[in-house]
Amino acid sequence: MSNPRIVYLNGEFLPFAEARVPIMDRGFLFADGIYEVSAILDGRLVDNAAHLARLDRSLGEIGIRNPYSLAEWIALETELVARNAVAEGLVYMQVTRGVAERDFAFPSADTPPTVMMFTQAKNVSANPMAETGAKIITVPDIRWKRRDIKSIALLAQVLAKQQAAEAGVAEAWMVEDDAVTEGASSTAFIVTKAGAIVTRPLSTALLPGITRLSVLRLAEEAGLSLEERLFSVAEACAAAEAFYTSASAFVMPVVSIDGHVVGDGKPGPLTRRLRELYLGMARESA
Amino acid sequence: MSNPRIVYLNGEFLPFAEARVPIMDRGFLFADGIYEVSAILDGRLVDNAAHLARLDRSLGEIGIRNPYSLAEWIALETELVARNAVAEGLVYMQVTRGVAERDFAFPSADTPPTVMMFTQAKNVSANPMAETGAKIITVPDIRWKRRDIKSIALLAQVLAKQQAAEAGVAEAWMVEDDAVTEGASSTAFIVTKAGAIVTRPLSTALLPGITRLSVLRLAEEAGLSLEERLFSVAEACAAAEAFYTSASAFVMPVVSIDGHVVGDGKPGPLTRRLRELYLGMARESA
Repeated sequence: MSNPRIVYLNGEFLPFAEARVPIMDRGFLFADGIYEVSAILDGRLVDNAAHLARLDRSLGEIGIRNPYSLAEWIALETELVARNAVAEGLVYMQVTRGVAERDFAFPSADTPPTVMMFTQAKNVSANPMAETGAKIITVPDIRWKRRDIKSIALLAQVLAKQQAAEAGVAEAWMVEDDAVTEGASSTAFIVTKAGAIVTRPLSTALLPGITRLSVLRLAEEAGLSLEERLFSVAEACAAAEAFYTSASAFVMPVVSIDGHVVGDGKPGPLTRRLRELYLGMARESA
Repeated sequence: MSNPRIVYLNGEFLPFAEARVPIMDRGFLFADGIYEVSAILDGRLVDNAAHLARLDRSLGEIGIRNPYSLAEWIALETELVARNAVAEGLVYMQVTRGVAERDFAFPSADTPPTVMMFTQAKNVSANPMAETGAKIITVPDIRWKRRDIKSIALLAQVLAKQQAAEAGVAEAWMVEDDAVTEGASSTAFIVTKAGAIVTRPLSTALLPGITRLSVLRLAEEAGLSLEERLFSVAEACAAAEAFYTSASAFVMPVVSIDGHVVGDGKPGPLTRRLRELYLGMARESA
């Protein structure tokens, strides 16, 4: 029999069933919080320093004090992964503005942020979908204008992912002003017939993807051609390859968009290579 | 000594300190929920049937089953108000998609929604600000595109209200494409020098205000001139009067916008009259 699942909450490692937050937590009332997800591979955290740097940046953008130093975060994550004996999967971290009587404006500055972390065991490296490729749909991007902040105000993403689930596909790419912004929980990429890897440049319209950044660096090191620019759904459908990146999907081939087959309907060679490069990097550096 | 504060949570009336939700509640992880607020006046609920109808509509828009009938909601609210002996203030209601392992798409359809309600005692009828008038600021409207849904994804409103608090004012009106959409937690109105009451027509750009609707009806019954159309901040600053409406502010005069004095800097006569009409209606029908 395995040990009970353990969750981190405000300084304590608790059995999962005991981990509860007061109804006045601002994460529950206002979506007033930030989250991050790091993958676990071979029991170790992937690209974790970059995820923690983005957590710190997101917290700063909405004026929540980061309760821990980088070293403290890493120690807590490592402890949680060990207690749950997760070899492969992810660690989820969430920080909210804490507990206070309901009122929109921030509570007093000495209100302690709520910190919560849990792990999920998941087959991330040998994900069968990486072999077949993912089908996706596109949906209008109805989110707020600060998508560079990784907030827990995720209702638009929930609705997009539900549309994808109802269409029987894995992901939804969001579209605004005739250009793809990003996936509901991933960064969108295409590969042109000339072999250029294309993804949208960073702005407040999308999240600065951590896996995106690593993949761009690996592609550059491999001498591949890169273009940071907007692209449309039509261009994506007509592309040689398409894929998306995220902390838990790594590099995921896209073989169909809104029912249109991409390329020959199989994961493309450049996409496979980037996935291999990313997994190699992840295993070495984790 | 007063009785302890009582909260309603998932079928139970609990002491406030015991009311907690699991960390996997989708309200806490995804802002995947809806809320409503009804005022309490003379111990009775104001415009409550309309608030419950909007709750039902918002839940339907995001595919959450309304767990209670209108009569059941009213019975629970009435019981909660009585248990807390609140003569004046508000009752807050929140419904989330329930508790499930974290995954963006909806959990299985038999997942029970989380239902939470609390009361706040507050001086709503003789609010001193109604005598002096409120100062407000304007901020860019950075919210998502389905503002007609009263969701708990309120981070943009939190940031707007915090800007207002830091400016030492009560409310922030949000502006998009050179027109006022609404307040961070209210509906925006102006009165033109010709005596017309102006407010923005309903669309997905703003919440269908319950108090807005009652005030428009009362104004119509009183033979006042009404215009449902967009207006700019410049027009609001130059208006004869300005005010906002909400479940807890009722009709609140605005005397200054971004530091520009509105009218003579005092609550306007039409605004005062509408507040009186609303309070009269609330006391009669509650």
